[in-house]
Amino acid sequence: MTLQTRAASGTVQVRYEDLHTWVSDLFTERGMPPDRARTAASALCYGDLTGFDSHGVFNLSRLYLPLFDSGRVDPVAEPEIVTDTGACAVVDSRRALGLWSAAEAMDTAVERAGKHGIGLVSVRDATHFGCAGFHATRAAEQGMVGIVASNCGGQRIARPPLGALTMLGTNPLAVAAPALTDHPFVLDMSTTVVPTGKVRIAASRGETIPPGWLTDDAGNPVTDPTAFDRGTAHLGWLGGSPETGVYKGYGLGLAVELLAALLPGADLGPAPAALQGDGGPHGRDDGIGFFVLAIAPDLLRPDGDFGTDAHTMFATLAACPPAAPGNLVRYPGWWEAERALERHRCGVPIPAHVHRELLELGLPGTEPAGEHQ
Amino acid sequence: MTLQTRAASGTVQVRYEDLHTWVSDLFTERGMPPDRARTAASALCYGDLTGFDSHGVFNLSRLYLPLFDSGRVDPVAEPEIVTDTGACAVVDSRRALGLWSAAEAMDTAVERAGKHGIGLVSVRDATHFGCAGFHATRAAEQGMVGIVASNCGGQRIARPPLGALTMLGTNPLAVAAPALTDHPFVLDMSTTVVPTGKVRIAASRGETIPPGWLTDDAGNPVTDPTAFDRGTAHLGWLGGSPETGVYKGYGLGLAVELLAALLPGADLGPAPAALQGDGGPHGRDDGIGFFVLAIAPDLLRPDGDFGTDAHTMFATLAACPPAAPGNLVRYPGWWEAERALERHRCGVPIPAHVHRELLELGLPGTEPAGEHQ
Repeated sequence: MTLQTRAASGTVQVRYEDLHTWVSDLFTERGMPPDRARTAASALCYGDLTGFDSHGVFNLSRLYLPLFDSGRVDPVAEPEIVTDTGACAVVDSRRALGLWSAAEAMDTAVERAGKHGIGLVSVRDATHFGCAGFHATRAAEQGMVGIVASNCGGQRIARPPLGALTMLGTNPLAVAAPALTDHPFVLDMSTTVVPTGKVRIAASRGETIPPGWLTDDAGNPVTDPTAFDRGTAHLGWLGGSPETGVYKGYGLGLAVELLAALLPGADLGPAPAALQGDGGPHGRDDGIGFFVLAIAPDLLRPDGDFGTDAHTMFATLAACPPAAPGNLVRYPGWWEAERALERHRCGVPIPAHVHRELLELGLPGTEPAGEHQ
Repeated sequence: MTLQTRAASGTVQVRYEDLHTWVSDLFTERGMPPDRARTAASALCYGDLTGFDSHGVFNLSRLYLPLFDSGRVDPVAEPEIVTDTGACAVVDSRRALGLWSAAEAMDTAVERAGKHGIGLVSVRDATHFGCAGFHATRAAEQGMVGIVASNCGGQRIARPPLGALTMLGTNPLAVAAPALTDHPFVLDMSTTVVPTGKVRIAASRGETIPPGWLTDDAGNPVTDPTAFDRGTAHLGWLGGSPETGVYKGYGLGLAVELLAALLPGADLGPAPAALQGDGGPHGRDDGIGFFVLAIAPDLLRPDGDFGTDAHTMFATLAACPPAAPGNLVRYPGWWEAERALERHRCGVPIPAHVHRELLELGLPGTEPAGEHQ
């Protein structure tokens, strides 16, 4: 570790390469083959690199290491192709680490798209895959469009609108494509208004949250994030209220469940067991399903100008004059790409309390003499 | 016309079959072959049947007949397959009526999915296709998953967040799949918070609209719907404010532009001409692009239980106890299917002022003696 300095904001800067190597080694120690471990480390550290802090190394001790330690992940699983139609494959992931197996699924989808114009890999019995955007971006790096979605297996976090029981996960969805150089288009979203990680990070910081994230039983907004884990507030769907589109957000969540889990035959949120819930989150994120799609524009566009046109389209968006001075107009993925370039140069800021956890897990290198308070 | 009665609410009930036959004849008179005209009539009347009033016969005089009369639609166009990879086709629609050509594209996608597991038809030079859900549902009727999206060609209606110029259309997206008997899952949504039709219907009724649909230049909510066509208020993206997900809605709108228009090489909203706008809506909805995808679960699921599992999943959702008594928990498409069944039985309620327009366009049958005031 050559660069671990405490910054003024209560974070510690860690060199990206050092963080990546250490996470990769940690997964190797847990039994993963080194090449898989490196891919999984890239998927996890993508969160820290791009600013999806709730999906980066913050989750090592909370999510991934417990999966290994309890045997819910098989580090050497050999995913099995159970159906193969050429353009499509159905894969039984056999509890491989999702951080790796989703990337592998996208690489397979890209290969199939290279032959058929489109490639679908439909995955069941998977585990948590981290940031959906990481996996979708693998297609964009090959000049393709990538779409990735995941359900949360049998874990249930959010209620249907007007419902009294949780039935669905936060069901993330990502779409990526080539755009400006080094700045792919990457939409990476939960279909709930926010993922649970953002609620918990606000709670850990003692902050209030905007109206619209959580509501109480009567549907009134709740701005205290600790109410979520106390079970007195419920996570909303993108769109907010019926007047401003909550049924669209809920419908997108259901579309993800359908594509990611019903299609490959993974565990479902809305299964009969859901009716046994007490109203709060319940169930475990085992048996997750993925929807992994790649489309090859260069096979589809007879003029071969997809890349040029994509660049023009996204450059036009970025050239839109701002409504107020200084507010740059950008597209999803742009700021994340800027942040990643900067953090590759200057290191990844890890919150001090997360950094302490990483040190306890064995992150080498104590804080250097030249630290900044 | 056997059933045209004026109901108490200021609407006239018209028998669905009569409306459908009349619209179909109208399209035939404009030069469409009869089988195409029937499909197009089904697509248009689907709006009236399911309750998407802003996308039904309301649009005949506003949108479709002017397209014929100005020659912007070619009623006998023969769409050309310009690329064929087996699983995928790129189709140049040659200005065929979108109400028909999108349905045809879905039928082609379903056929390809039946062989390859997935079928993508990527369409350019198309015209307005009505309700996205109609076309997606054609796949669901064959036991498949259907996904349909359309951009708005060169027409620009909404601004990027923080931007001062319109650059994108309302970019609709639909996902359909088998669910409960006669009640398919159908998510049919604009990626803006509402389509423009809902704003204009509220304006025509002299109603106010909920905060979140429109904002002024400074970003403040506008509840007067007439402000939109006056150019003093702008249509928002699903999600509302940055705190509650506007970048997700905007990202979905961009994903639709990418999939529906950039992929087949259709006219784009965010093209350099967008930078010449005055801040309000501009451009024409020529050169529209469609994304039409079908997935065949019966080829993918080795157990062959997709249909059964889909039924179980949607039945579970419908069995979720309500948070407040009487508020049934349903899924997108359920109420629309109920409404369609009822309107098949009892007729379609057409607002009186729209009915007067239809009479002027030649809808036969004056109001019967037994009308109810």
